[in-house]
Amino acid sequence: MSNPAYERLVQRHLRMHRLGHLQSIAAWDQSAFMPPKGNDARAAALAEVGGLLHEMGTAPELKTWLDEAAAEPLSDFERDSLREMRRAWDARNALPPSLVEAISLATSHCEHAWRTQRPANDWSGFLPNLKEVVRLQREMASRLSEAQGLSKYDALLDRYEPGMRSADIDRVFGDLRQWLPSLIQRVMVKQSTEAVLRPEGPFPKSAQRELGLAAMQLMGFDFEAGRLDESAHPFCGGVPEDVRMTTRYREDDCLPALMGVIHETGHGRYEQNLPREWLGLPVAEARSMGIHESQSLSFEMQLGSHPGFARQLAPLLQRHLGAQPAFEADNLHQLLTRVKPGYIRVDADEVTYPAHVILRYEIERALIEGEIECEDIPALWHAKMTELLGLSTEGNYTNGCMQDVHWSAGLFGYFPCYTLGAMYAAQWFATMRREMPDLDDRIARGDLIPVFDWLKAKVWSQGSRRSTPELVQRASGEPLNPAHFRAHLEARYL
Amino acid sequence: MSNPAYERLVQRHLRMHRLGHLQSIAAWDQSAFMPPKGNDARAAALAEVGGLLHEMGTAPELKTWLDEAAAEPLSDFERDSLREMRRAWDARNALPPSLVEAISLATSHCEHAWRTQRPANDWSGFLPNLKEVVRLQREMASRLSEAQGLSKYDALLDRYEPGMRSADIDRVFGDLRQWLPSLIQRVMVKQSTEAVLRPEGPFPKSAQRELGLAAMQLMGFDFEAGRLDESAHPFCGGVPEDVRMTTRYREDDCLPALMGVIHETGHGRYEQNLPREWLGLPVAEARSMGIHESQSLSFEMQLGSHPGFARQLAPLLQRHLGAQPAFEADNLHQLLTRVKPGYIRVDADEVTYPAHVILRYEIERALIEGEIECEDIPALWHAKMTELLGLSTEGNYTNGCMQDVHWSAGLFGYFPCYTLGAMYAAQWFATMRREMPDLDDRIARGDLIPVFDWLKAKVWSQGSRRSTPELVQRASGEPLNPAHFRAHLEARYL
Repeated sequence: MSNPAYERLVQRHLRMHRLGHLQSIAAWDQSAFMPPKGNDARAAALAEVGGLLHEMGTAPELKTWLDEAAAEPLSDFERDSLREMRRAWDARNALPPSLVEAISLATSHCEHAWRTQRPANDWSGFLPNLKEVVRLQREMASRLSEAQGLSKYDALLDRYEPGMRSADIDRVFGDLRQWLPSLIQRVMVKQSTEAVLRPEGPFPKSAQRELGLAAMQLMGFDFEAGRLDESAHPFCGGVPEDVRMTTRYREDDCLPALMGVIHETGHGRYEQNLPREWLGLPVAEARSMGIHESQSLSFEMQLGSHPGFARQLAPLLQRHLGAQPAFEADNLHQLLTRVKPGYIRVDADEVTYPAHVILRYEIERALIEGEIECEDIPALWHAKMTELLGLSTEGNYTNGCMQDVHWSAGLFGYFPCYTLGAMYAAQWFATMRREMPDLDDRIARGDLIPVFDWLKAKVWSQGSRRSTPELVQRASGEPLNPAHFRAHLEARYL
Repeated sequence: MSNPAYERLVQRHLRMHRLGHLQSIAAWDQSAFMPPKGNDARAAALAEVGGLLHEMGTAPELKTWLDEAAAEPLSDFERDSLREMRRAWDARNALPPSLVEAISLATSHCEHAWRTQRPANDWSGFLPNLKEVVRLQREMASRLSEAQGLSKYDALLDRYEPGMRSADIDRVFGDLRQWLPSLIQRVMVKQSTEAVLRPEGPFPKSAQRELGLAAMQLMGFDFEAGRLDESAHPFCGGVPEDVRMTTRYREDDCLPALMGVIHETGHGRYEQNLPREWLGLPVAEARSMGIHESQSLSFEMQLGSHPGFARQLAPLLQRHLGAQPAFEADNLHQLLTRVKPGYIRVDADEVTYPAHVILRYEIERALIEGEIECEDIPALWHAKMTELLGLSTEGNYTNGCMQDVHWSAGLFGYFPCYTLGAMYAAQWFATMRREMPDLDDRIARGDLIPVFDWLKAKVWSQGSRRSTPELVQRASGEPLNPAHFRAHLEARYL
């Protein structure tokens, strides 16, 4: 064995991967199937394996092996792999255990209280909890910032989108901010003259489930390596070898579950197609939140809003839910591209969604850098909602600045990834069109293989070998370019 | 802390219990939900946590703590708890790792080949594999026998039925052997004049599932602490806080799944009602295989063959599968008490089942003690089947001595537990009747609470505080007495 330290690192990571497998499956079961009285024992079991994995991942010998391996004659691949091992080690070891503990307590407390404070519109009850969370996030950001030589906010952002900096985001979101509000206005005017039929329910759960499975089939999901079940909050979990997707159903509407399933299938296929030969090593993991979201949005939005794709979905809806005029392909396409500014981010359409993200990004960046305080949030929220979407949130905390769980949970630096994902997705399809001029005809014919093959070659099979900017450059031949997202929205919605 | 060594043992066992939770849930998922391509990763993950648990359970400090704790001023309960900890430690440490490994390889190989050899009736292909398994089982039995001062077969039996000896089994099975063949004959004669209607299917799976859930409800299963799902081989898994039962459905017949569910519910309620305050310690575990089986058979047979119980089941069948003459209470009772000798143990009725077990017990005891060799099995099987059930298995290995997986899997000493369980169950109900003279009226009125309360007080809540013989003595006021089983069969079937 020529690289003994690197080999030891590999064995340790494979062992952690195997224990992590049990953690992932038990966490999935907790959301999808576990009866309520099982929860205490499950929480204790998950905490036990979590603690064990943390112990294994912060063991001092790991640091020694990382340093020794750096001096070994590694191949290019092994060097990339080692970089990701060190990145994972840094992330686990950057913070003192007392701070990790304090953050965990503060976020649990804040999130738990938020569950009742949000529906009660109780900003003043929420504020002190949020201030404590933000205080600790600032402390974490300071420590990470010193260790990595990044700005405070960038140090948080780097946890979710490695290599991405707020200067880059300012550039692309700054561009977006220029044209988005007027684009929304123009789309609204155009759509105001269009008559769109709403699907008439009820739609039984079991039929919606069959429809979802048919859509997953259409999107190439491998059912021998994964499942679809139900949970209160849809997610894509499990392990790359066995992907566990969930959705939820509303009997009065069939499109939320359908498009939710298509979205999660994008995440699921990314996981199912991560590089098998390296599986268990950090370098085999999905690259970042933004890149993951670029896959779900490639499926849900790039394909979902494609007029040719509606022609593939229409017969599935008719087969599983019965024929009705709303399920004709043209009407379905109109339903899937309907734009309407609203208060709630998770309910937003493709065109107004970035406005919700820009607003959050601007506030959380300023908050972490110490330019504003928590008390300033409601006024800023109202001002930015008015400016970007023409909606007032004065006095409305429930559907304003208290609507998301992210800040309560300490997820600062996460929001931008949603819109970065949408932009990456637009850039992937722009590149595909350049390389395959007949792409849109193929999609309209139901031939989605070229799309999947491209994503597999350029994104899925790459794991974490490259940083996010490098992955983008290699896949599309240029850095992240918001012009593609703009062109996509204008082509689809105007 | 007055008993530091005992306390350390408690903490270590609780930790193992929490990791064992993940192992149990992942194993359940593997049988119930896992897609095929997930299997390699799952097997690796289960092996990893299995190895980890073995490491934790054989760590040298455990032996030190066990010895130290024995000298500590423990309470009576703690002393019982310590005894079970030592029992578990002995079981894990009694064999050299090389022998454990060899057994694991030989049984995997034998069982794997058996899956194709059995349908091919290939005894000569199977024989060398079985001989190797038996050779290793004899070696294991010798080592355990020396360490524990038991006969070889008793040392194996003690792994499944602590405190039970082949001398006891010879006594009770010897009694049974006297009257069983003639009882079977008399029942057959009596039933030959009875006209019984078979249920007419097909019975859709979904309706059978609802029926099973209704039966579980009737049997008091706590659905907030468990579930029912499907698997190829029904079992009761999960953890005491979250019991995962499975069943399988045949669309042409509704009784196998229904009675299978009732059987597993007996196991499930035992697990759900194990003593909560000690959970995670060996003393809180179910006592033995035979006692476990006494619970499933209390549900499936003692209640299942009760004419008053058929009156409870009949309306459930009618509600979920539609009314038909076969589902009238009297006919249903006849269906549930139908006796017919057959080749296959797992398909056998309550009356002929013990014959299958006696036969296996006599052969495996002689095999382990070295009185016979594997080559002798087919002739012995044929002779005993002829003697006990009047059926020849000459040349029929598939439905003769190759029908069970147990010996291939190295489970010698396990078979007697099935019939011990049936006898314990008869003894529980005899005791209940003595203590509650109106028991049968109550059952006929659908008031099953007294049965459940009795089982909970005398068996479920006791965990492993007493040895099996002691548990039997305390619950019923006498040692295992085959007269109760005989009285039960005669009352129900003659």
